[in-house]
Amino acid sequence: MFQEYDVIVVGAGHAGCEAAAAAASMGSKTLLVTMNMNTIAQMSCNPAMGGVAKGQIVREIDALGGMSGIVSDKSMIQFRMLNRSKGPAMWSPRTQNDRMRFSEEWRLALERTPNLDFWQEMVKEILVENGKAVGVKTALGLDIRAKAVVLTNGTFLNGKIHIGEKNFGGGRTAEKSATGLTEQLITLGFEAGRMKTGTPPRVDGRSLDYSKMEEQPGDAAPGKFSYSDTQPLQKQISCWITYTNDTVHKELQKGFEKSPMFQGRIKGLGPRYCPSIEDKINRFAERDRHQIFVEPEGWNTVEIYVNGFSTSLPEDVQYKALTRIPGFEKAKMFRPGYAIEYDFFPPTQLSLSLETQLIQNLYFAGQINGTTGYEEAACQGLMAGINAHQKVHGKDPFILKRSDAYIGVLIDDLVSKGTQEPYRMFTSRAEYRILLRQDNADIRLTELGHSIGLASDERNDKVLAKKRDVEALTNELNKTKLEPDMINEGLEGLQTSAIREKVAASHLLKRPQIDVASLKSINADLEKLLNKYSIEVQEQAEINIKYDSYIEREEQLVQKLGNLENFKIRTDFDYDRVKALSSEAREKLKRIKPETVGQASRISGVSPADVSVLTIYMGK
Amino acid sequence: MFQEYDVIVVGAGHAGCEAAAAAASMGSKTLLVTMNMNTIAQMSCNPAMGGVAKGQIVREIDALGGMSGIVSDKSMIQFRMLNRSKGPAMWSPRTQNDRMRFSEEWRLALERTPNLDFWQEMVKEILVENGKAVGVKTALGLDIRAKAVVLTNGTFLNGKIHIGEKNFGGGRTAEKSATGLTEQLITLGFEAGRMKTGTPPRVDGRSLDYSKMEEQPGDAAPGKFSYSDTQPLQKQISCWITYTNDTVHKELQKGFEKSPMFQGRIKGLGPRYCPSIEDKINRFAERDRHQIFVEPEGWNTVEIYVNGFSTSLPEDVQYKALTRIPGFEKAKMFRPGYAIEYDFFPPTQLSLSLETQLIQNLYFAGQINGTTGYEEAACQGLMAGINAHQKVHGKDPFILKRSDAYIGVLIDDLVSKGTQEPYRMFTSRAEYRILLRQDNADIRLTELGHSIGLASDERNDKVLAKKRDVEALTNELNKTKLEPDMINEGLEGLQTSAIREKVAASHLLKRPQIDVASLKSINADLEKLLNKYSIEVQEQAEINIKYDSYIEREEQLVQKLGNLENFKIRTDFDYDRVKALSSEAREKLKRIKPETVGQASRISGVSPADVSVLTIYMGK
Ligand SMILES: Cc1cc2nc3c(=O)[nH]c(=O)nc-3n(C[C@H](O)[C@H](O)[C@H](O)COP(=O)(O)OP(=O)(O)OC[C@H]3O[C@@H](n4cnc5c(N)ncnc54)[C@H](O)[C@@H]3O)c2cc1C
Ligand SMILES: Cc1cc2nc3c(=O)[nH]c(=O)nc-3n(C[C@H](O)[C@H](O)[C@H](O)COP(=O)(O)OP(=O)(O)OC[C@H]3O[C@@H](n4cnc5c(N)ncnc54)[C@H](O)[C@@H]3O)c2cc1C
Repeated sequence: MFQEYDVIVVGAGHAGCEAAAAAASMGSKTLLVTMNMNTIAQMSCNPAMGGVAKGQIVREIDALGGMSGIVSDKSMIQFRMLNRSKGPAMWSPRTQNDRMRFSEEWRLALERTPNLDFWQEMVKEILVENGKAVGVKTALGLDIRAKAVVLTNGTFLNGKIHIGEKNFGGGRTAEKSATGLTEQLITLGFEAGRMKTGTPPRVDGRSLDYSKMEEQPGDAAPGKFSYSDTQPLQKQISCWITYTNDTVHKELQKGFEKSPMFQGRIKGLGPRYCPSIEDKINRFAERDRHQIFVEPEGWNTVEIYVNGFSTSLPEDVQYKALTRIPGFEKAKMFRPGYAIEYDFFPPTQLSLSLETQLIQNLYFAGQINGTTGYEEAACQGLMAGINAHQKVHGKDPFILKRSDAYIGVLIDDLVSKGTQEPYRMFTSRAEYRILLRQDNADIRLTELGHSIGLASDERNDKVLAKKRDVEALTNELNKTKLEPDMINEGLEGLQTSAIREKVAASHLLKRPQIDVASLKSINADLEKLLNKYSIEVQEQAEINIKYDSYIEREEQLVQKLGNLENFKIRTDFDYDRVKALSSEAREKLKRIKPETVGQASRISGVSPADVSVLTIYMGK
Repeated sequence: MFQEYDVIVVGAGHAGCEAAAAAASMGSKTLLVTMNMNTIAQMSCNPAMGGVAKGQIVREIDALGGMSGIVSDKSMIQFRMLNRSKGPAMWSPRTQNDRMRFSEEWRLALERTPNLDFWQEMVKEILVENGKAVGVKTALGLDIRAKAVVLTNGTFLNGKIHIGEKNFGGGRTAEKSATGLTEQLITLGFEAGRMKTGTPPRVDGRSLDYSKMEEQPGDAAPGKFSYSDTQPLQKQISCWITYTNDTVHKELQKGFEKSPMFQGRIKGLGPRYCPSIEDKINRFAERDRHQIFVEPEGWNTVEIYVNGFSTSLPEDVQYKALTRIPGFEKAKMFRPGYAIEYDFFPPTQLSLSLETQLIQNLYFAGQINGTTGYEEAACQGLMAGINAHQKVHGKDPFILKRSDAYIGVLIDDLVSKGTQEPYRMFTSRAEYRILLRQDNADIRLTELGHSIGLASDERNDKVLAKKRDVEALTNELNKTKLEPDMINEGLEGLQTSAIREKVAASHLLKRPQIDVASLKSINADLEKLLNKYSIEVQEQAEINIKYDSYIEREEQLVQKLGNLENFKIRTDFDYDRVKALSSEAREKLKRIKPETVGQASRISGVSPADVSVLTIYMGK
């Protein structure tokens, strides 16, 4: 009934969609098997993409030729660049999305992808022969064969939903959980764990009083995620901000004795940085209020997402507390918040390609690896899809380094260190923040994506042209010398000191008070010069020039530490031979099987001394 | 947590959506409780509305002020008026719809309805006090109180899905079934039964070869359902027609020994007139082919609905047989077809208002009453929603007679006769077919809908104006006398005999060869006269004049039999007092409790002699 596929992707969440799109676009005959074709790329929680560090990831996915950026752009209802007032390393794009449109755009994008077939069913088992994944078995008992399998089950594996003292099976509210897979994987030798996450109640926007809230409009000049030709918004929808207060907290506290978290009914650890509201008032008892973002779920629907109010307290407690929030006095709830517990597989069982160490040609991506968040899931899906394709076509794994991308940081963290609690990306996890900016993801990654056949020629040509232009403009700015009398008046207007002798335009750009816009404003020739180039090119040149020394410093660091990455470790390397290793290091190294000395160096328990020893061995 | 509502509607299928919209629009504080707010008004089976007799129902719903017509218009991708070549009683509008848009438009329409709240959860129990429904209990254990409850659970009550030899619980593919309610209703004294229905596999449109099929485009001048100002389509999508053949049938037969239907695993009766393909080749063994309609699921998706190929044979049998159909040689399946068994409640337990006889203020509507089809469900929902509102506001029940509407026929059939198998509407079920046309549903019903506060003033004014115009035009056509030399040449062109002396324009219209368009073509004055009126008015006048005698005959019949409807029977009437009744009639009458002698006369087992006896009693 089915052909033998190159790649089967299990699950059409954010990870699965990227995996299927990537493998199929690269030319693998791909089958996407998912439990419900009406919930493809469902946003399980908030209707938004990006944000701090996550926005960078979406840009990286896009630069490589993935789809999340395009889909987000097509379905956004608001765009904001967060942290604009900070340095460019911190700028983070974020969209508010129409939940239905997002799912629909993903589905249509997948339908337009050649080589990609669909099958709606639950996968119960991986077919394994000689230690190698060769397909899947479905709930109906169908065997579907493939050369590689990517698992992206999200929160569905033995999912259990909690609200107050009640709990029941489910992969998401009103959806069935997936059973069988965890049990089989354990028999195969995998270690599984349990995590939890939660979501806030949804309310009727018609029942809110916005006059008691602060408006949070989109950016005046809204941007977008994709480097391709998606369009920025002409019209945007505002979000709103309000705050909890002491009365709200008191109401919530009344429910603590029925809380599944506080009473120990939930065993799995939750995301530390997306805590539930009960967690927040518990952990930060000194704070007398918490911010609540009131986010519309789409262009037309009245449904509202109450960001910041995730909870698994009993529904009547949720309701009473909610109505004590300014603007929510008459709130009507559509659905209560809830927590969900699910199985995950500690990601130290993977290689950097996301292939499992135990079963060849089997890949794990997304929430199943202990992460949280759409963006974290999507980028893993992309990498797993790429690597499954590479593997079945006899090509090298495609691995991004920590200095290449947040994606590289994420996967290296997961594989080398594992995670005890749902892993979320932060800028602080990256050691090369100034290199891994949202503005240069294309320059960092598109050529790589193109070289493996994922990013299109068009994308690549665009990046090459951009690079050429940035270089040309930088040169022009270096060469253009400005005389004091040409610009001192303008400089005064900008409240920055006058110049005594002529200086290069690029030199001026290094001043914090001056950006390309101010250069244009103080001199017509400069304006003409700059305007020959696109806004992106101007911005890129400005950042390169302004942060020149920081960038250079990080690049040197990469070079230095990068050497460690060049010391490859064979998977069958026998650590027992290396007597000089500490026993903790030896044990961890044998378990995690790092692929380079660089990766080994980031494993907790592997000391600098151990690293030196390894370097000597691998250098031989 | 919840206010006390006037009306709670359980289930947001086609019945529940109409019920909630009607009750809320009329002013009842209404709560719509449904298991999954993402599947509101999901089309469980084919993405189409209307068709023979069903199209009339949609027009009637619209005329009364219901929403199905408007939603269908807004989400249609193709419009066809079926049976155009037959008399106007048979004309039946049908739309092909974008499945996602249909659901979204319904949801947005409900969100815009004042007085309507939403709650996402499964209802497990009806709260009953003193023989009266006073609310519902949810799966989380919430009690929500209301003055009336409308149940519209569709195929979800103890739903069980069958594919070949496998079966599992579910209310629709990938959706949970609803449990608890049937069991409670049985304890309360209700009788429950089991029915089944089925759906075909869905395939990938990219894998079909349309060059081997016949194209079925939409109408050249497409119409629409709603009498309101929805817009007809500018652009339409075609469907395609192909046929099964002997090889297909042979492949299917190979699966018969695993068929859940033929092997007796499915106990419930299926819809006789929507048979599965295995049923068709079994029952009509002499036919060497069956028609297959290849229907797109929406504007953009590649998913295709294989109308005519409903099946619960094993999925590999479905697949093999499918690929033997011309154009389907390389078909790729997205989801297999399946059958579903579910609980229903024999509708003889209801009054004509759809209130249950056992529990006051409890209403049943839709598939739960043993019907099949979106339109049948929607119109019951509308009536139940209206009547729940009427009841809690101390107003009379709103009941449509068999001579008012197909809706009246449907409900009278259900309540008076019950149904052994899924009930579907046909024109043949109506005795006043020439009165119950799709073109005059507004004239028949809008004033009624307006009188109860559902149809808007605007709608009503439009109908009154239309009625006035039709009368004026009819008068003008009666008065306008045509001379032989004015028109005989034209008549010859139309291949109809010349006139000898002057005749009224209306007289000419009675000829089968002549319609308003031909009148316009043969005489400029007539053209001017007609064009003063809208197309609808011209059409209406034409039908009135052309079918004058038929219409009159049916109207007389209505009058005559209608007398029987005037003989009301009190619910507590003691049939045992009436010795002259046959014992079969007495038993049935006691069970069904007809509300008029007219209704009694339609109960099988009640003879004309019994009717006379009743007439005498009630006439007193
Ligand atoms: C209640 C809830 C609250 C959340 N809150 C937050 C939050 O506050 N912050 C945050 O960052 N993230 C949150 N998340 C997490 C976020 O939704 C996930 O990180 C993200 O969706 C993971 O993507 P994924 O692709 O790994 O899995 P999912 O999006 O869960 O998709 C999994 C897909 O696989 C399918 N599937 C599963 N098992 C099978 C099988 N056996 N056979 C076939 N198909 C299968 C499912 O149908 C689904 O389509 C929350 C999630 C939930 C459910
Ligand atoms: C597989 C299949 C095949 C079909 N084939 C055909 C066909 O060939 N021809 C045809 O004419 N018709 C067919 N139908 C029937 C058609 O879909 C139904 O007639 C129509 O949808 C009935 O509308 P409804 O409103 O009564 O119920 P549904 O559309 O089934 O809606 C029921 C709603 O109630 C909700 N619900 C149920 N129980 C609860 C509860 N306890 N608490 C809260 N919410 C609840 C559900 O979530 C759902 O939203 C088919 C249906 C199915 C499932």
